[in-house]
Amino acid sequence: MPKNVAAFGEVMMRLQVPGYELLSQSGTLTYSFSGTGVNVTAALAKFGHIGFLVSTLPENPIGDAALSYLQKLGITTSFIRRDGQYVGMYLLENGFGARPSRVTYSNRLESSFNKATDGTYDFNTIVKKVDVVHFCGISLAMNNNVRHLMKTFAKAVKENGGIVVFDCNYRPSLWGEDGYIKAKPHYEEMLHLADIVMMNEKDAMSILGLKTEKNDRSEQLKELIPYVAKTYNISVIAGTHRLINSDNTHSLKGFIFKNQTFVFSKTLTFSVFDRIGAGDAYTSGIVHGVMEGFSMLETVEFAAAAGMLAHTIVGDTPMSSEKEILRAMSESVGDVER
Amino acid sequence: MPKNVAAFGEVMMRLQVPGYELLSQSGTLTYSFSGTGVNVTAALAKFGHIGFLVSTLPENPIGDAALSYLQKLGITTSFIRRDGQYVGMYLLENGFGARPSRVTYSNRLESSFNKATDGTYDFNTIVKKVDVVHFCGISLAMNNNVRHLMKTFAKAVKENGGIVVFDCNYRPSLWGEDGYIKAKPHYEEMLHLADIVMMNEKDAMSILGLKTEKNDRSEQLKELIPYVAKTYNISVIAGTHRLINSDNTHSLKGFIFKNQTFVFSKTLTFSVFDRIGAGDAYTSGIVHGVMEGFSMLETVEFAAAAGMLAHTIVGDTPMSSEKEILRAMSESVGDVER
Amino acid sequence: MPKNVAAFGEVMMRLQVPGYELLSQSGTLTYSFSGTGVNVTAALAKFGHIGFLVSTLPENPIGDAALSYLQKLGITTSFIRRDGQYVGMYLLENGFGARPSRVTYSNRLESSFNKATDGTYDFNTIVKKVDVVHFCGISLAMNNNVRHLMKTFAKAVKENGGIVVFDCNYRPSLWGEDGYIKAKPHYEEMLHLADIVMMNEKDAMSILGLKTEKNDRSEQLKELIPYVAKTYNISVIAGTHRLINSDNTHSLKGFIFKNQTFVFSKTLTFSVFDRIGAGDAYTSGIVHGVMEGFSMLETVEFAAAAGMLAHTIVGDTPMSSEKEILRAMSESVGDVER
Amino acid sequence: MPKNVAAFGEVMMRLQVPGYELLSQSGTLTYSFSGTGVNVTAALAKFGHIGFLVSTLPENPIGDAALSYLQKLGITTSFIRRDGQYVGMYLLENGFGARPSRVTYSNRLESSFNKATDGTYDFNTIVKKVDVVHFCGISLAMNNNVRHLMKTFAKAVKENGGIVVFDCNYRPSLWGEDGYIKAKPHYEEMLHLADIVMMNEKDAMSILGLKTEKNDRSEQLKELIPYVAKTYNISVIAGTHRLINSDNTHSLKGFIFKNQTFVFSKTLTFSVFDRIGAGDAYTSGIVHGVMEGFSMLETVEFAAAAGMLAHTIVGDTPMSSEKEILRAMSESVGDVER
Amino acid sequence: MPKNVAAFGEVMMRLQVPGYELLSQSGTLTYSFSGTGVNVTAALAKFGHIGFLVSTLPENPIGDAALSYLQKLGITTSFIRRDGQYVGMYLLENGFGARPSRVTYSNRLESSFNKATDGTYDFNTIVKKVDVVHFCGISLAMNNNVRHLMKTFAKAVKENGGIVVFDCNYRPSLWGEDGYIKAKPHYEEMLHLADIVMMNEKDAMSILGLKTEKNDRSEQLKELIPYVAKTYNISVIAGTHRLINSDNTHSLKGFIFKNQTFVFSKTLTFSVFDRIGAGDAYTSGIVHGVMEGFSMLETVEFAAAAGMLAHTIVGDTPMSSEKEILRAMSESVGDVER
Amino acid sequence: MPKNVAAFGEVMMRLQVPGYELLSQSGTLTYSFSGTGVNVTAALAKFGHIGFLVSTLPENPIGDAALSYLQKLGITTSFIRRDGQYVGMYLLENGFGARPSRVTYSNRLESSFNKATDGTYDFNTIVKKVDVVHFCGISLAMNNNVRHLMKTFAKAVKENGGIVVFDCNYRPSLWGEDGYIKAKPHYEEMLHLADIVMMNEKDAMSILGLKTEKNDRSEQLKELIPYVAKTYNISVIAGTHRLINSDNTHSLKGFIFKNQTFVFSKTLTFSVFDRIGAGDAYTSGIVHGVMEGFSMLETVEFAAAAGMLAHTIVGDTPMSSEKEILRAMSESVGDVER
Repeated sequence: MPKNVAAFGEVMMRLQVPGYELLSQSGTLTYSFSGTGVNVTAALAKFGHIGFLVSTLPENPIGDAALSYLQKLGITTSFIRRDGQYVGMYLLENGFGARPSRVTYSNRLESSFNKATDGTYDFNTIVKKVDVVHFCGISLAMNNNVRHLMKTFAKAVKENGGIVVFDCNYRPSLWGEDGYIKAKPHYEEMLHLADIVMMNEKDAMSILGLKTEKNDRSEQLKELIPYVAKTYNISVIAGTHRLINSDNTHSLKGFIFKNQTFVFSKTLTFSVFDRIGAGDAYTSGIVHGVMEGFSMLETVEFAAAAGMLAHTIVGDTPMSSEKEILRAMSESVGDVER
Repeated sequence: MPKNVAAFGEVMMRLQVPGYELLSQSGTLTYSFSGTGVNVTAALAKFGHIGFLVSTLPENPIGDAALSYLQKLGITTSFIRRDGQYVGMYLLENGFGARPSRVTYSNRLESSFNKATDGTYDFNTIVKKVDVVHFCGISLAMNNNVRHLMKTFAKAVKENGGIVVFDCNYRPSLWGEDGYIKAKPHYEEMLHLADIVMMNEKDAMSILGLKTEKNDRSEQLKELIPYVAKTYNISVIAGTHRLINSDNTHSLKGFIFKNQTFVFSKTLTFSVFDRIGAGDAYTSGIVHGVMEGFSMLETVEFAAAAGMLAHTIVGDTPMSSEKEILRAMSESVGDVER
Repeated sequence: MPKNVAAFGEVMMRLQVPGYELLSQSGTLTYSFSGTGVNVTAALAKFGHIGFLVSTLPENPIGDAALSYLQKLGITTSFIRRDGQYVGMYLLENGFGARPSRVTYSNRLESSFNKATDGTYDFNTIVKKVDVVHFCGISLAMNNNVRHLMKTFAKAVKENGGIVVFDCNYRPSLWGEDGYIKAKPHYEEMLHLADIVMMNEKDAMSILGLKTEKNDRSEQLKELIPYVAKTYNISVIAGTHRLINSDNTHSLKGFIFKNQTFVFSKTLTFSVFDRIGAGDAYTSGIVHGVMEGFSMLETVEFAAAAGMLAHTIVGDTPMSSEKEILRAMSESVGDVER
Repeated sequence: MPKNVAAFGEVMMRLQVPGYELLSQSGTLTYSFSGTGVNVTAALAKFGHIGFLVSTLPENPIGDAALSYLQKLGITTSFIRRDGQYVGMYLLENGFGARPSRVTYSNRLESSFNKATDGTYDFNTIVKKVDVVHFCGISLAMNNNVRHLMKTFAKAVKENGGIVVFDCNYRPSLWGEDGYIKAKPHYEEMLHLADIVMMNEKDAMSILGLKTEKNDRSEQLKELIPYVAKTYNISVIAGTHRLINSDNTHSLKGFIFKNQTFVFSKTLTFSVFDRIGAGDAYTSGIVHGVMEGFSMLETVEFAAAAGMLAHTIVGDTPMSSEKEILRAMSESVGDVER
Repeated sequence: MPKNVAAFGEVMMRLQVPGYELLSQSGTLTYSFSGTGVNVTAALAKFGHIGFLVSTLPENPIGDAALSYLQKLGITTSFIRRDGQYVGMYLLENGFGARPSRVTYSNRLESSFNKATDGTYDFNTIVKKVDVVHFCGISLAMNNNVRHLMKTFAKAVKENGGIVVFDCNYRPSLWGEDGYIKAKPHYEEMLHLADIVMMNEKDAMSILGLKTEKNDRSEQLKELIPYVAKTYNISVIAGTHRLINSDNTHSLKGFIFKNQTFVFSKTLTFSVFDRIGAGDAYTSGIVHGVMEGFSMLETVEFAAAAGMLAHTIVGDTPMSSEKEILRAMSESVGDVER
Repeated sequence: MPKNVAAFGEVMMRLQVPGYELLSQSGTLTYSFSGTGVNVTAALAKFGHIGFLVSTLPENPIGDAALSYLQKLGITTSFIRRDGQYVGMYLLENGFGARPSRVTYSNRLESSFNKATDGTYDFNTIVKKVDVVHFCGISLAMNNNVRHLMKTFAKAVKENGGIVVFDCNYRPSLWGEDGYIKAKPHYEEMLHLADIVMMNEKDAMSILGLKTEKNDRSEQLKELIPYVAKTYNISVIAGTHRLINSDNTHSLKGFIFKNQTFVFSKTLTFSVFDRIGAGDAYTSGIVHGVMEGFSMLETVEFAAAAGMLAHTIVGDTPMSSEKEILRAMSESVGDVER
């Protein structure tokens, strides 16, 4: 049954040099609008849910373009405020083989979303309309105001009986020196509020400062994740192990931990077209599986296949339907579909 | 020595989303005109033969564009009638890695070619000018009228001493339920008329309903193809075994059966850029080899290399010259040619 | 105050040769999705209303792309059914100066919208949610079924107290020989149901067969339109006189007739970038003016300015906000806006 | 009745900066293949004649591309030799308003056509197959060899009873200092062989060195052209007067002189998209009119309209059918054609 | 004789929607780098001078791309510092006819140039290498720091015997409420330092608050400009009167005031392709004329023609050589240049 | 410490069919300007040196575009003469997998560079400003004049105490029959003048005619290179062994020989995007390492990594900074850089 799902997050303008030129070689950019919240709500809307984005966009041609783009993705935009001046931007130069992709940010801290002040969102109304709300750790890095809005919203969801999803994502360059120390209390607050958490053993060690004497990633995972679940009282923790291979393929293995049990997906190895946003596809797969009552194995296999397909899609935002993901789970690579 | 070769078949407009976007993401299409008959006659024209297409196009800007495109390919268009209203279209979204390509048809059954009625083509004149005529099984799926025209044409070729090539291609979605049962008598009629037939053991089993207790494809082939050749009195049967690998390469092994003997090509493994139409390149290689008196081994190796190169060419239609194919047969992948 | 506005109409795929090449010269098309109903509801959504489209799209990648495109335009898509096989298409080659633009249709009669059968739309539910519904004369040319659905819907609107808008558009090529005679009864039926009608004196003469001894267009208008309003009991009739000048500009003068009174806009002369769909912008301006209680002069000036701006916009669908139209009404051409 | 028409001339590769950037601003070029002979034979093929080009192209990928392009235009390529090394090129930067277009040539003198030596074309065979052959004055500027081939061909046409068309075009930069003096004897030789000549009073004065005391162009024309016709025994002389207006329009008035009589077309004023090659459209209109037995007025009006439409077409080569030209002669600028 | 010319100013990234789509319709942008200082130094470099830009760019891929672009324009970049984080951006949507162009700024106040602090530029070294330095009024609107740097630089130029050019440009949106009152003292300080000033009577009235009882622009000009020259002790004041016509043309008349004398250019009327930056072309023409010792008439005609041609060039930055401008001064619109 | 580096070489216009179409399929080309000297000086300018190109370009729009492009690359253009008529061109059709890339040259022998005559360059001035000059064997193939200029320049460098770098590159198609015999004395003259030479054992055998009884490439190298170094008194010889793998990757192993010692890089295997010009990146790495006093191992590893990265860059010319190359030496393929 379709659920009402919301995400709280910034809409960014993605400006990409087409093909494999550098910004200093080209004269053309393609643009789209994305962000973790955008990706997750759009993906869930493709699965048949109603996906609300809770965000702020300026009342200017860039804000208009962003709004049109979100509508195109099937996102319900009634909780998007129009205020402020800027949309955060990032420029993407595609890497090729031995040359990694590069992202250059512009104007993020001055964006409408990050400048929105306390009291601007009517969270009490929103939480009554939604079953699940997704939050992303990246937003915690912005400023005190955003952090405050985020926690206020999460508490309201909780009090209203909704489900809080927290993606424990962390970007070092945004926190600066001693970042982990500054960040930890904010992540802990969100973890205490969360029902479904996206993280793996690396996050546990770096963000939460947990220690282990194991060297193997799997063993570290099996030791630390149950501890985190217990400490913060989290129902579901899920995440992935990713391997970047030298031949332009990645390998991905998903896990889900629930009721004291780990379940793992097969390791999928696949060619990568556009890596950005694929983690959000995995998240949306987990949320969909949990909401629809899939078994743990179905859930993690579905999420991994959703993640895999998102690497083959142009742009940040996943575009695959439930049917396409189910087919990708069961079949080998097919010939042209007619 | 150059021959006069004809093909009877529909011209379709191929509308392709450039790059790897979905139709719902992009706003641009590239277009070209193709079809099995187009591909085979264009390929044979590249080898130095005169390639006539026998078809119908509407008298409107789309028909004009199709005609110009066929001329560009080197096809002789004097047997193309102008009549009817539409050109059949197909939209192609390129797959990437784990995500398969998708073809969506539009307006095929209402096309000028498929609406052409009895008596519209002057087959008696045509058969006097041509040495070989190519027919494709896909056309049998259209409607009674097309089927009737096809058989009438094939009989006229036969009576005039020409060679009938029949590609035993079958597309399930076009025949609907109980398709094989409906289709079988029509395929059998064409097989009785044909001198050169493109098929493999799978076609023999599914279309002709033949049975075998063998499990191995090679063994099935060796059992069924001689039986088909004998039953329908066919001089040459040729075809391929294709394997779709997970790393964006395909493997192809060609065979030819003639005078009770099988000859196989090496198995070629190669990167794939555009898979559609590559089978027609293989057909044209077989027809060229037979017409030019190549040995069976030369013929099948030439056809397999022609097929391989067609996978590296943009669009449906093969573009390689005899010289380029011969070089691809003998050499490893080369550096830049200057 | 925002109204709920609906339109009943086909969604077509517009395939345009970019720039000024012919279809036989280019290899690229840009595509978008439009139609009279699409244009009118999108324009009204831009003015702040809720714009519902009542239509049918196939459940395939073309239907998906159409739906995404309508969402992007801000159209509310909850009354769009997914059924049938095709989306009607038209190919557009841009004219330049002395060379007129050319439109070639494909697959229109077989489209999902035109194949939808009786009982497929839940008109009773729809009419309860909407204040105004727009119908277009072009749809009357399709087939009996569409005509029947259209009249059924219009009657339901009427019975429910809603406003029926009827655009008396007529396309000769769609009706064939004796078209006006075949068409007249259907147009009359719609006129009897309509509250707001888009037409001018030429429509009155050709479609309704009215006669006048006047030679001047203005005088013909002033004689015939009041007669039509009275005969069919229509509250508002509006339309335009258009002049195509030789220097790539058009001149447009709008009129509105209501309460036995004519009011005319200024004659606007302006450069034309994309003429298709500009009439729908005029319609949406009239509907908006009437719904918002603008004076007759404000209404017709607003509609004329909306029409003018639509000629400067890429694609069929108007994109201007109320604010932009109001500014265009009052100002001369401005310098760059910063 | 369709005629067999030939032209003797170079095929050039046109490399155009798209839009209005300079070569030092852009990074992209569009390319096509043209030349006076290409334009005239393609235009006549569009009118239903068989258009042969007599030329030479290198056996390399550029020559292959040129050949495909000519086929696409509907030119019959059986008299095109494959030899030599280069295709002449020109780079075109589009002007805008006050900034004129710029053409930069590359590699013209070393082209396959200009390096072709005596005896390479089988003129005796060719002249038996064709009714009319077109020659252009530009070719006279190349080198002695080309001049010799040209005169040899023209004589062979004459002796075989064919019609010689000579376009008295002259490009100063190609002849260098004292160009007119060097060029005159060659032009005179061709004029003696010609039946239909394209020129106006300026050519008569500059190339042939004729003098007049009149100042008005029309009067100069009426004095000099009859003298030229008589001196060189020419049946038909035709040409145009062109005015370049400041608003991106040109004005064109055509004339034809035959049997001691001048007939003039209306002065056409029209927006210009691509001026290059439009003169060849005028020529093809004259040749078509004469061959089809149009009246002098029909001929010159047809040629002028053909010239006008060619200014609206992308690229050098005219693309309009006889039907489109006839409509442009009789109608005012029309609305979208559906 | 070539001079060493410098400009102090921000480099901005211009992001333009290609063609005439809105940002909410397109998915592609073209980009370049410009700014008043960029335009003036590039234009003067095209005339043969050495053009230094004094500015700051971040050490990231956007800064690298900007630097490459300036080098391409022929600007000498040795006085460009690498520091800070952002490049100011503006998004441009092209208007068409009745629909004006729109510019949306992003991230300007946070740019490297506007965040550069006191002492960061080595003005003492710079002023020894340059003959003329150009400053723009827009920079005065940024912040105290930029204002301070600007005045410090101008004073150093003056003390070192160099020429100060000040463009009295004013952008209302950047100064906010009571802008003119806030801005006036800063403009006055610059005027006291300047030798050559770009302004007209409107600037005198709005920025300097001068009053006149004349109504005609010319008379206002003739009254106010001599007063300004005298008050602030300015050698040369130059500027333009611009008229935006309804047919996509502008009319431009330049003036120069020097030694108590006004000289005016002819009024030029021309089609406009890209209006942005054309004022900088006029400035560079005045500076070039003054530096090269042109007569006042030559100077103002040269500047006006430079301005006119800049309207026909893609992008902000003028691209015309001295030779091209001289030709545009003397000739009518020409045919294709070969 | 930055050095002044020069290269003597032709600037060519690279015209590339975008994507994987053939020239006969496409209608678009992208262009850039390159050449061995361009690539080497641009690469060294990216490393912080001053890179002068010594060459000749015509005074026309193609020459202007080339000059702008070189400026964009950061090349110092003060030693580039403007003279002659043409820029050499090459057309590139990208291969895919089994289909090799094709290069077709146009107008090379007639280029400004290759037509420049004795005495045109002021070598005496140049050699006083530069520390190192790079020459390429390809230039030796052009004509006597170029050969003479090259040797004169190299001698002047030597006499002035500068370092001569000679890339022993050889292109068979340019020398024609008995090419190695004709070429050998010229290569030997350059080798006698050179301090740093790029070559491997194949060059030693084919160009210098050396013999060895070894079969293994490594052993041949170890036998022949020391002999060459001794014979021609060369300080440093460096080169690579390249393997073209069937999966669209290449393997590259660099060597450097100096002071009787060989040092080898690791074998790097990597995906290839654009192979042309990658050898010049390797050369620039060797020159940089030697000039900066890197150890032999650092030098050869740096050069190999520079070569590897150049295969991932669009166009002929390397674009990587020293920092990026150092990172590529030490790290595995990374995720997106943010």
